[in-house]
Amino acid sequence: MAKTGQEGFSPFAVGQLPAFEVTGDSLARAADFFSQRQVRRVFILADPFLDKTLILSRTQSAMGADVSLSLYSEFSGEPKLASVQSALNAARQHKAEGVLGIGGGSALDMAKIVKSCLRTGRDVADFVMQRNPLPPMDAQVPSVMIPTTAGTGSESSGTNILALENGNKGWVWGAETRPDLALLDPHFSASLPAHLTAWTGMDALIHAFEAATNRYTHKGAQLYAHDAIRLSVAALPDAVEQPDNLAARTDMLLASYYAGCAINLCSTSIAHALSHALARLAPIHHGLATALAFEVTLPFVLAANTAEMRQAAMLFGVPELTDLPGQLSRFMDRLGIERGLPAAFAAFDADDLMPILLSEEIQPMREACVIYASEADLYRFASRLFEQK
Amino acid sequence: MAKTGQEGFSPFAVGQLPAFEVTGDSLARAADFFSQRQVRRVFILADPFLDKTLILSRTQSAMGADVSLSLYSEFSGEPKLASVQSALNAARQHKAEGVLGIGGGSALDMAKIVKSCLRTGRDVADFVMQRNPLPPMDAQVPSVMIPTTAGTGSESSGTNILALENGNKGWVWGAETRPDLALLDPHFSASLPAHLTAWTGMDALIHAFEAATNRYTHKGAQLYAHDAIRLSVAALPDAVEQPDNLAARTDMLLASYYAGCAINLCSTSIAHALSHALARLAPIHHGLATALAFEVTLPFVLAANTAEMRQAAMLFGVPELTDLPGQLSRFMDRLGIERGLPAAFAAFDADDLMPILLSEEIQPMREACVIYASEADLYRFASRLFEQK
Repeated sequence: MAKTGQEGFSPFAVGQLPAFEVTGDSLARAADFFSQRQVRRVFILADPFLDKTLILSRTQSAMGADVSLSLYSEFSGEPKLASVQSALNAARQHKAEGVLGIGGGSALDMAKIVKSCLRTGRDVADFVMQRNPLPPMDAQVPSVMIPTTAGTGSESSGTNILALENGNKGWVWGAETRPDLALLDPHFSASLPAHLTAWTGMDALIHAFEAATNRYTHKGAQLYAHDAIRLSVAALPDAVEQPDNLAARTDMLLASYYAGCAINLCSTSIAHALSHALARLAPIHHGLATALAFEVTLPFVLAANTAEMRQAAMLFGVPELTDLPGQLSRFMDRLGIERGLPAAFAAFDADDLMPILLSEEIQPMREACVIYASEADLYRFASRLFEQK
Repeated sequence: MAKTGQEGFSPFAVGQLPAFEVTGDSLARAADFFSQRQVRRVFILADPFLDKTLILSRTQSAMGADVSLSLYSEFSGEPKLASVQSALNAARQHKAEGVLGIGGGSALDMAKIVKSCLRTGRDVADFVMQRNPLPPMDAQVPSVMIPTTAGTGSESSGTNILALENGNKGWVWGAETRPDLALLDPHFSASLPAHLTAWTGMDALIHAFEAATNRYTHKGAQLYAHDAIRLSVAALPDAVEQPDNLAARTDMLLASYYAGCAINLCSTSIAHALSHALARLAPIHHGLATALAFEVTLPFVLAANTAEMRQAAMLFGVPELTDLPGQLSRFMDRLGIERGLPAAFAAFDADDLMPILLSEEIQPMREACVIYASEADLYRFASRLFEQK
């Protein structure tokens, strides 16, 4: 809920926002961008699911024979410290003057860390958890990010997650990790299978809902969050049901981008607390984990019945807040989202999740919720999630 | 109308957006900003209507005795080339390391030109009409702008208007003329008289409507334009009727800021073509001129009946587009806006306005309208305006 001051208005700050474009010709636009900056050696960090040969040949053709390319995609799953270190070494060996990230949230998080650290001469580990300040953007190499999923909003955010050597999650954080330019090109997300479109799209929608309604929300964040809710509610079913609907894909890329801006301004909330905790226990897609956690926690959150929640519900098409959980479940049904944790969770139960939920790294998201979830509340949410498995 | 490509989506670009804050303590925030950048010599360009002694003493108290201030406010009306040159000289004589602008659109346009040119060693005239490139922002002195009116959105825009020696309007244009930080502080606009609150507020609303519906509109601009329409329609009557309503003042400052972002992305339209032409003929407040021109041209524009216009009308509270002109007139009545050109226009008529309307500088705004206004259309609009005088 927005904190209205004694004088009747609520202070807030909105930092500088990087440039983005909606384009059907992203590699040509990336080529223009690098060419204007005299970048002749480009390091491409691409999602492993992409066709390396095709990406290389198309990028070479867009950038011209003068530009020297090196493509890295030797990683899988969420970014690990060792993978990011290896990517950074590859970029340095290539003497990269610019970084192009193409992929989902993991690939873009890695690409953003690489471009931020490239000119420092130091190891990635030196910048985890803000151990040292990153160089300002104008001291970094120019960078362009092209998302292939519409969900995490990594291309608009200054938050980058990676798994540390001890298995804990670590963050490389800061506005200066954002790219110079994000290119939202629906051709790159049109090949995403229906279930991944649904899971990633739910992540964007939940980013937007949490940013629009949590303890730290403000009108500056709501500008982006509200449009992201509107766009996702209208476009996500079409994007799932009609894979080649480029208008729906574009709207979801915009929703994801705007939702990323919103959480950058005022964080996520309790659904992301549960979702990040689940991922620590066993492998699960971030979008699916978040969607399951959101459905389980929504009635608890809505008990706060704030003006911001009623406004978000209206954008969801429900005038009555009490109807929102039902509307959400019908929406997830329509997207074909099967409830239930993956098989890898069979060995675990709510008691295994609790220590993670109470760990330090999860508390900021727990505390962002308008209603503070007690340990009993968390145990109830965890139990509901494991009942679904 | 958004140009939907053959593939069903519309490309657009949104450049980097500068930082802004809503704050009740803007001088302290400005002090923090300059202090972080080791700025010890601040040039203040303040609106002549402000109390110079009070501004100086409050700023000095916020920034501390170590900071050397120089305040300039020797100008009146819209910025003239000679005034900007004189302000630039004063800033150079002060050896200014930072620029703080406080005022309405004219003061902020001047402050933005001064901060952009300060380190170039060259005259303002060298940068009018993009004769030479301005230095990039990181090569300029740090700058903060505090608007005292909620209308022009100068604090968010890269457009700066000044009158040239021959009386023609000139522009100093470019994203690099934007400030590093805009501070939206309702205390600074709370003293604005009702009629100026109404006129400037209408300017913001019309910026938003034109950006949301003109030939160049796109979803990126509409994000800002739509919120600006929502905010103005809801808050402007309260700001006019309750001068000390800081919540309404804040919402209007936000509306003005967002509307400035929107026209930065996709220009204004026909009402601004007429308004700028009127100001060339005789002195008239820009907000009043724009409001009168908007009311006269709206039915013509709405004949295009685009989806974007219907959407903007909904935000105005009218489901039927044909009801919008009536709703606008009632809105202007409620704001107490008297229709009619100032007495200085008594010597002129539509025939005097026509050559200005057909001059080169007006054509970009004329062409931005979805329906191209013929000479006969323009003559009809001009005649309607002069009938009101």
